[in-house]
Order: sequence, then C-alpha cells, then structure tokens
Amino acid sequence: MQKKDKLLIKNVLLNGKKNDIFCQNGIIQKIDKKISKKSDIVIDCKGEKSAIPGLINGHTHSAMSLLRGIGDDMPLKEWLEDRIWPIEEKLSSDDIYWGTKFACLEMIKNGILFYNEMYMFPEISMQASEKMGIRSVTGLVVMDVPKPKDVKEIEKKYQKIKETELSKISISPHSIYTVSKENLKWIVSFAKKNNLIIHIHVSETKDEVDFSIKNYKQKPINFLDSIGLLTKRTVMAHGVWIDDEEMEIIGKRKSSLIYNPTSNLKLAVGKIFPYDKAKKYKVNVALGTDGSASNNNLDLLEEMKIGSLIQKYIQNNPTALPAQEILDCATINGARAFGLNSGIISVGKNADIALINMKDISLIPGHNLVSDLAYSASGSVISDLICNGLPIMLNRKVENENRIISEFKKRSKNITK
Amino acid sequence: MQKKDKLLIKNVLLNGKKNDIFCQNGIIQKIDKKISKKSDIVIDCKGEKSAIPGLINGHTHSAMSLLRGIGDDMPLKEWLEDRIWPIEEKLSSDDIYWGTKFACLEMIKNGILFYNEMYMFPEISMQASEKMGIRSVTGLVVMDVPKPKDVKEIEKKYQKIKETELSKISISPHSIYTVSKENLKWIVSFAKKNNLIIHIHVSETKDEVDFSIKNYKQKPINFLDSIGLLTKRTVMAHGVWIDDEEMEIIGKRKSSLIYNPTSNLKLAVGKIFPYDKAKKYKVNVALGTDGSASNNNLDLLEEMKIGSLIQKYIQNNPTALPAQEILDCATINGARAFGLNSGIISVGKNADIALINMKDISLIPGHNLVSDLAYSASGSVISDLICNGLPIMLNRKVENENRIISEFKKRSKNITK
Repeated sequence: MQKKDKLLIKNVLLNGKKNDIFCQNGIIQKIDKKISKKSDIVIDCKGEKSAIPGLINGHTHSAMSLLRGIGDDMPLKEWLEDRIWPIEEKLSSDDIYWGTKFACLEMIKNGILFYNEMYMFPEISMQASEKMGIRSVTGLVVMDVPKPKDVKEIEKKYQKIKETELSKISISPHSIYTVSKENLKWIVSFAKKNNLIIHIHVSETKDEVDFSIKNYKQKPINFLDSIGLLTKRTVMAHGVWIDDEEMEIIGKRKSSLIYNPTSNLKLAVGKIFPYDKAKKYKVNVALGTDGSASNNNLDLLEEMKIGSLIQKYIQNNPTALPAQEILDCATINGARAFGLNSGIISVGKNADIALINMKDISLIPGHNLVSDLAYSASGSVISDLICNGLPIMLNRKVENENRIISEFKKRSKNITK
Repeated sequence: MQKKDKLLIKNVLLNGKKNDIFCQNGIIQKIDKKISKKSDIVIDCKGEKSAIPGLINGHTHSAMSLLRGIGDDMPLKEWLEDRIWPIEEKLSSDDIYWGTKFACLEMIKNGILFYNEMYMFPEISMQASEKMGIRSVTGLVVMDVPKPKDVKEIEKKYQKIKETELSKISISPHSIYTVSKENLKWIVSFAKKNNLIIHIHVSETKDEVDFSIKNYKQKPINFLDSIGLLTKRTVMAHGVWIDDEEMEIIGKRKSSLIYNPTSNLKLAVGKIFPYDKAKKYKVNVALGTDGSASNNNLDLLEEMKIGSLIQKYIQNNPTALPAQEILDCATINGARAFGLNSGIISVGKNADIALINMKDISLIPGHNLVSDLAYSASGSVISDLICNGLPIMLNRKVENENRIISEFKKRSKNITK
C-alpha cells in the first residue's frame, strides 16, 4: 500500500462517540459521524475500538532490546563495565539492524509510532526503522572523550545518510562528560546550519553535575546555554538533577526535556525528575522509555503510570501529574519536541493513529478512557496502528513479525555466548 | 470437571527445560521429563509456555473494580467523601456479587489465583469467588468507630457463613482508628478461638501514627502488640510508616506485611514501604494490588515492577529488591502469609499453576525469565491458569466471561448515575 492510498476508519470511538475518520496522502482529511468515500482500505471498528494519537517515544536506544534482562539489579559501574560494554563492543551492523527491527515491532505492538534514537550504526538502524514503517529521529552520535572524534567524519557521514519522510537525522552529543567543549560548540553550528534536532543526555546523575561544576564552573544547563546549545530543536533526556534556575533557562530557550521514569528509578540515579519545576517554567516535557537494557520494555502506557505515580509521591500530592497531562507527555508534547504534525487526532494532522481494543479487561467498565490508559492499561490494549496513513498493525498482527523475532533471537543468543 | 480428575501438563518449560507435570486431587503428583498417565485433561504446551506458581494477591477490595477510573488525581479526603463513599453507600449485594466476579476474572487473566479480601457483604463476595474457582480469604470487616458494632452480630455472621476448600474467612478490623480498643481485643480472642487470619490496614498514613500516639501513647505496632494482635496469622496491609523498633517487633511475632506500592504512590501517603527494614528484621513481605479504585488494576506483574523500582530509588541502590525477591513477594511469601500449600511448583504442593505465553513480545529474547516477569511483562503474558488442579483459564478464555463482563458493566453504569 502506498501513502497516496485512501484509508477509512469506520465506527471508531472518539471521546466515547462513534465516528468515521478518512485519511489520504498520510493526512486526516475528514472526521464525521458517517463518511461514504471509496477507500483502498477500510477498518471497521464496530464501536469496539477507540482512536488516540499514536504514541511518541522521546528517548530510546532501540537495539539494546538485544540485551533485555541480562544485567539487572547491578550497580551502574559494574553493569556498564561487566555486562553492557563488553557485549556492545561485539555488536555488528547486522545485530543493530535486527535489534532495531525488533524494537520497532515491540513499539508498534505498544502503540508507539515515533521514537527518538541514540545508538550505534545510525544509518543501519534508520534502514530498519524505515522498513517497519514508523517515524524516527536517529542521532549521529558524538562521543569524543577520551578518544578525540574528527568532526569532519561526522559531516561526511551526514552527507551520505539519506533522510526519508519517516526517518530523520539528528545530531546526538552523548553528554557533556563524553564530548569536548570544542566539539559541543561545533555541534551547535552544525545543527543550526542543517536545521537538526540536538539530542543529548543531561543531568542524569549527580556525578555529571559535579563534573560540570569542576570543569566548567557552571551547572550543566548553564554551561550548555553558555555555548548556545539550548535551542527550540534541543531535546534533553533525563534532566533529573536540574534545579529551578536551570529550569527557568530551559523554559526561556524553549528546549524540551524527556522524562524517563523507569530508567531513572531502575538505575537509582538518586532523584526523581522535577516535573513540578518543569511545569512552573512552562518547559515542554515528553515521555521516553529509554532502552530495554534499563527499562526493560518499550511500553509507553506502562511508563505513563509509573511516571505519574512517582510524581504524586515526590510532590506528596495525589493531584500531581494527572492522567490527561501524562497522556499529553506521550503524545502532543512529544510531537512538539520533535516538530511533528502529530500527537492529536484532527483534520489536517498526520494520520498517525493508534486504535484501542475497548474489550480489554483493563479498560472495563470504562468510566474514563484517559484514566484507564494512564493508570490501568498496558501496551497490549493496542489493536491497530496507523502511521502516515498506512496501517502497520491490524488486530495485533504485523507483517513479517515471525521472521523478525526469529532473526532477533538468533542474534541475541549469539552476542551473549 | 471435579477436583478428583487428573490433569497432565505436557512439554511445559520449568526453569527453561521441557517437563511434564501430573496433578491429581488438586495436588502436583509428579514432575518428570516424560509422564505417560491417562488423564482427564491434557494441556500440551509444546515447549512454548513456562510454568510459574499462580500469583497471590495479599490485599484487595475486589468489588471496587466497579469504581475504576471515577476518582483519580484527587486529595484523599475529597476522593473518599465526594466520590467513593457516596457510591459505596448505594452498593447492593448484587453489585458486590458481580463486582467481585469481575475482579476475579481480571485477576485470573493476570495469573492471580488467590486474593485476600476486605470489603462489604463478605458472604456474597465469597460466593462470587467460589464460583470463579480461585482461592480467597474474605474478611468479616469490623468498623465500629464512630458507630459501635455489636460483636455478637459478627459472631453470629461467622457461624452462618460456610467456608469451602477455596474460600476461607478472616476477621478484618479495618484499622486502629476505626475500631475501638475493646473490639480489637475481642478480635484477638475471637481469631485465636477460631484459628482465623487477622487482616488489618496498618500505618498507611502519618495521621494514623499521630492518632495512635495521641490515643494510646504508643506507635501503632507497639499498640497492636500490647493487645496481642500481632500473631503468625496476622496480615497487615501498607505499613509504610513503620519504624525500626516496630519492624523488629513484627519480625519477632512472625506477622506478615503486605506491600501495595501503586496504591501508596497514587494516594500519596507520604512514604515508601520500608522494605530494607522488613528484610533486616526478617519480616515476611507479600505483595498486594489494593482495590481498583486506588491502583487502578489487579495486575501483580505490573505491581512487581513498580514495587521493585521504587525500592531501588528510595534505597538509592540499583541492587535493592531484585527480580527473584519481588517474584517471591508475589508467590511464596504470599503463601507463607496465608498458610497456603502453594507459591512453589513441586511435588506435594497444590496444583496452583500459571502458564506463561513465551511468545509474548515482552518476553523476547528470553535471556532471563525471572527478570522478564519482574521488569518487562504485564498480566497479558499469562495464557492459562490452574487452581487446585482445575484449569480455570485456557488460552486466555474463561468460562462465561462475556456474561460476567456484561452484568458488571450494567451495574457499574447504574451506580454512577
């Protein structure tokens, strides 16, 4: 099926009422009680499925799905040095290809149709993502400490990699402690020249804050601002150690933060993301799963629950981060962070739609769908996923999924030998 | 099918190896590579399903499923006074019957085959539970503050209610602030005489600790110990405000604590359960979902993840409450708390078994099943559930489930009118 084809979703629940949605050229063209348009594909929901915007995963390392479950319950240093890095060193482009394909499959099954990627072999993972039919922004990763990185290499790589309608490129400095100031400055100008998103890990641990103060005599956000890295196109993952002064700066620069609650708890980074501060300074907050080595899944519905619950705890307030707000973090705020015409179902927006099986036990009796999605459902409630006007999952079936799983398993077994 | 029937589970994975399990009279009789016994029912897992002990839900209010999603993100007082209590006042025994049946259905779908209940109309909810074929302990609830309760009434009720092999009775003083000291003392002797489990909410909020100190000049656990309520048969839900001295007493008395992480976070009770202290004093800790009005589901696999993650955070240690320990909380520790011959798969134990669909996306690649259950899976990975030697769910189908759902929906709609 080509993007130009016409798609009609019939009898789908929107805010609890039956509607039809007509899509063409990847765009939602019409929403009405009854639409009679000849279409190439018709999905009849029979009033048993609800439509929500496809979910947006603000931060992940998708091929780390290969490592799911091999290094839990360990101190960070031991985890990285004894488990993760020795395996990562051996990963081939083929491993990354199938690892990314599998991660995309898992995301699709959980209603995610966009992800923001930072990992090895970006050109290979972009190919995998493109084949799966979902949207992504993949980072050209820069890590030049202690090994200096030649920026010309990155520029060359960028020239060679082809962006498509679905698969875009970002520039991804790993962090302030693994990229030199000189290269961070180059990244700022490179991103500006090419209008790229800048994707960076920021203030995940106290060590990082200490590093910044020791080396730059400033807190991480102040430092990044001083070199011009905080732009509207800047997306920062974690940010748990950000204080009020820093948050105010982020708000002014209109950069986005990505909240990764599970990963932050599991790795015990020592703090919980200061959502209250982000809200106070009107910072755009999107939600991320991080990679499956530290989560251990790619399920944003589960992430919504955990993300909301721990805010209620840390703010000592059951009204903190309510259901609609956390759903926004996984949809419209993600769209804002990545400049997507998605995250909301309305005419003129991308036909990026997740359908929900309202018969799932976790959604019954159904007093309040937003609450049920935030606090009760897991990814298994997603029945169908439409990305850019094309159905990429129908009744939980994805094309070629058995092949993907078997290739993925093979590679996953090999790397742990 | 009667309990005396023979059940053979073939080619099921136990610790990753294919085995057969033969059950008769509700007991696991034999586990071996190949068992050839004539059986009434044969479940062939074809090496694609793993067996784990059926999960044990240490604390819930099952019929509150009727209220799922109607009062989220609200302060506790407003939640109770404006949303929950006005509805609860109107609940009929019929509502409770179908509410409990639905909650059992949800638990079955999530691999839970025992739950510890505290709610209205205990005799009715026991009937519902019995019909669903899972185990339960249902509390005769005592709340006599401000309205004095005649203990003779409770004794009479107890004489009338029939226990069965699956459905047992406990005595459930709601809490120290809603039951008078006089009645708490009576409960201690009543429970002793009838060998009953005592199920009570303890130290859920700081207000409760303050109440105890004001009224009894002691902390809650010291007070309960002073009246002899801490026994091997005592099961206390929440316990987030328990200190070292109190935990030591619980350890000595061999009472059990039920950890309800989601509920505690969602209602913002101000602390996280002190699992480190419980471990230090060798207190038996089981896991609970609490009711669907404060969770909002009955999924112990999700609860395991949240329960482990927040311990890593609060102890600032990624090795805290590792995967196997949190799985134990949902299985063997629960069995210990409630005196069940379950919680482990071995010969001579109850045939209380959950089968897991190893093809679920969240369990792939499958490096470590315990980790995958703790950190990746949700309840939807459960394919079959066997309780007391009888299959009560096969390939996610439960007898009469559509009828249960439709009756439940009807009542749930009515009560919110």
